Amino acid sequence: MPTTPTPRLSGLSAFPLTPLHDDVLDRAALAGLVTRLVTAGVDSLTVLGSTGSYAYLSREERAEVARTAVEHAGDVPVLVGIGALRTRDVRALAEDAQDAGAAGVLLAPLTYQQHTEDDVFGLYRDVTADLDVPLVVYDNPGTTRFTFTDELYRRIGALPRVASLKIPPLPADPAAAAGRVAQLRALLPEHVSIGISGDAAAATGLAAGCDLWYSVIAGTLPEPALALTRAVRAGDADGARAQSERLRPLWDLFARHGSLRVTAAVAEHLRLARRSCLPLPIRGLDEAARAEVADVVDRLAPHPAP
Amino acid sequence: MPTTPTPRLSGLSAFPLTPLHDDVLDRAALAGLVTRLVTAGVDSLTVLGSTGSYAYLSREERAEVARTAVEHAGDVPVLVGIGALRTRDVRALAEDAQDAGAAGVLLAPLTYQQHTEDDVFGLYRDVTADLDVPLVVYDNPGTTRFTFTDELYRRIGALPRVASLKIPPLPADPAAAAGRVAQLRALLPEHVSIGISGDAAAATGLAAGCDLWYSVIAGTLPEPALALTRAVRAGDADGARAQSERLRPLWDLFARHGSLRVTAAVAEHLRLARRSCLPLPIRGLDEAARAEVADVVDRLAPHPAP
Repeated sequence: MPTTPTPRLSGLSAFPLTPLHDDVLDRAALAGLVTRLVTAGVDSLTVLGSTGSYAYLSREERAEVARTAVEHAGDVPVLVGIGALRTRDVRALAEDAQDAGAAGVLLAPLTYQQHTEDDVFGLYRDVTADLDVPLVVYDNPGTTRFTFTDELYRRIGALPRVASLKIPPLPADPAAAAGRVAQLRALLPEHVSIGISGDAAAATGLAAGCDLWYSVIAGTLPEPALALTRAVRAGDADGARAQSERLRPLWDLFARHGSLRVTAAVAEHLRLARRSCLPLPIRGLDEAARAEVADVVDRLAPHPAP
Repeated sequence: MPTTPTPRLSGLSAFPLTPLHDDVLDRAALAGLVTRLVTAGVDSLTVLGSTGSYAYLSREERAEVARTAVEHAGDVPVLVGIGALRTRDVRALAEDAQDAGAAGVLLAPLTYQQHTEDDVFGLYRDVTADLDVPLVVYDNPGTTRFTFTDELYRRIGALPRVASLKIPPLPADPAAAAGRVAQLRALLPEHVSIGISGDAAAATGLAAGCDLWYSVIAGTLPEPALALTRAVRAGDADGARAQSERLRPLWDLFARHGSLRVTAAVAEHLRLARRSCLPLPIRGLDEAARAEVADVVDRLAPHPAP
């Protein structure tokens, strides 16, 4: 059942956690996070990204996450991560996501063995062959250990349903960043949007011409991420950089502990998730790091008890 | 149901492929491989190692592989890989392996997010807590992206049921290799055996005092691996090195294409598996590389048609 064409992805796509409690999906906490993001006004949600722990969850849990997000997202489009090691499983997850009402899907090339360019092209070709919604190509070499070449971007960008490319951080130098975005645009069809990821690189990426920000922090603290995105949209690159600088204590914590553990600690501190919300064997931060996270969050935006 | 104590793992443990056909488990081909290895006289089998594509298979497929191997292995002990990203899933796989009659289990710390030492220790502690068979700690930084420290080896080695440590290649210098094995012995209880992996490093590792060889190539070509292992056991280090040198064209192919794709091509060439026996998205070697593999295999040991 082909769906109607989706508008070009743009603005801010927020990646919520998939909160667990006692190692079981905490559906109520997930619904709360989704409602918080929709209320704040993000442009789209992406559930089951790396921040949503997709790689650790069962097919049944992932279908439940997709359904819960769509149910609480109202008119906000929900993208759903469908990554898995095996092509067969990715295709099944794509079906589940579409059945749940996903506006699009997100696919990273997971690896255990080192995969070749032909393996990865074959994966995207096989998955898009029977897909009815737009697909975001998720380039995250830090977690997947797979590095896309420009030639592979070009080949995959030409596949049907491919709608967006989620790229890792650009060079910090603004001219170099803009040059790289221009280079990517030349490789991709006009309808394929380019989204920056790596939150510390968002202001640079948006100023360099990326269409959107695939944002970890927006999944838990949407307001500062929206402020940054809106500054860029208003042509205020200096304002966007200032917003990003304000968030630097968070970026520093991300660099030290990984964005997932820090984001989970933020959500637990704000009582958006219950303690130990990550899937084992991943343990939360220790008490000292939690205290640092709480301090940074409270200084960013004093918050009332929920 | 606790089992009787298993003798210290030693000698040659052969890692067969898990052959697929049309992306579905080829049970007959797996049974044929197991029978071939048992007939050749390997000391143990390890199914669902990296060579057995464990990370790509479903729980049901993995249980079927374990049952098939045990059914055809006779008196030869069968170890079963139980690795998965999530602790919950590893525990379920451990149960399945024991139900199938595994003599032991093999566990690598898979990662998607970067896992900490405490995450990995917690995984091994939680899994061994309700395990009734010996466990092999599988250190394979090339596929898992997790690097064990010596302190972590020590902590995990002290857990109940931990029976063996599968290590990555040792230094090529014989004295340095022996020194490293002595260092590891000092960290581990006496009953924990040390096994070398990385086939090109086997002769060095066994000569340096490793108890056994966890061998990729023995899963498909057991005779040359047995010849090498027996030379070491007979005190003939020069003979073992000569056997390893004879196999160098294979090690070179492993280095260029990865041992999994080469081993699959060997098995397909010898008609031990049907064409395209690996799980998609992993594609087999191209025609030129297959021709090279066939040439190397035929020169190692001319073989009759099966």
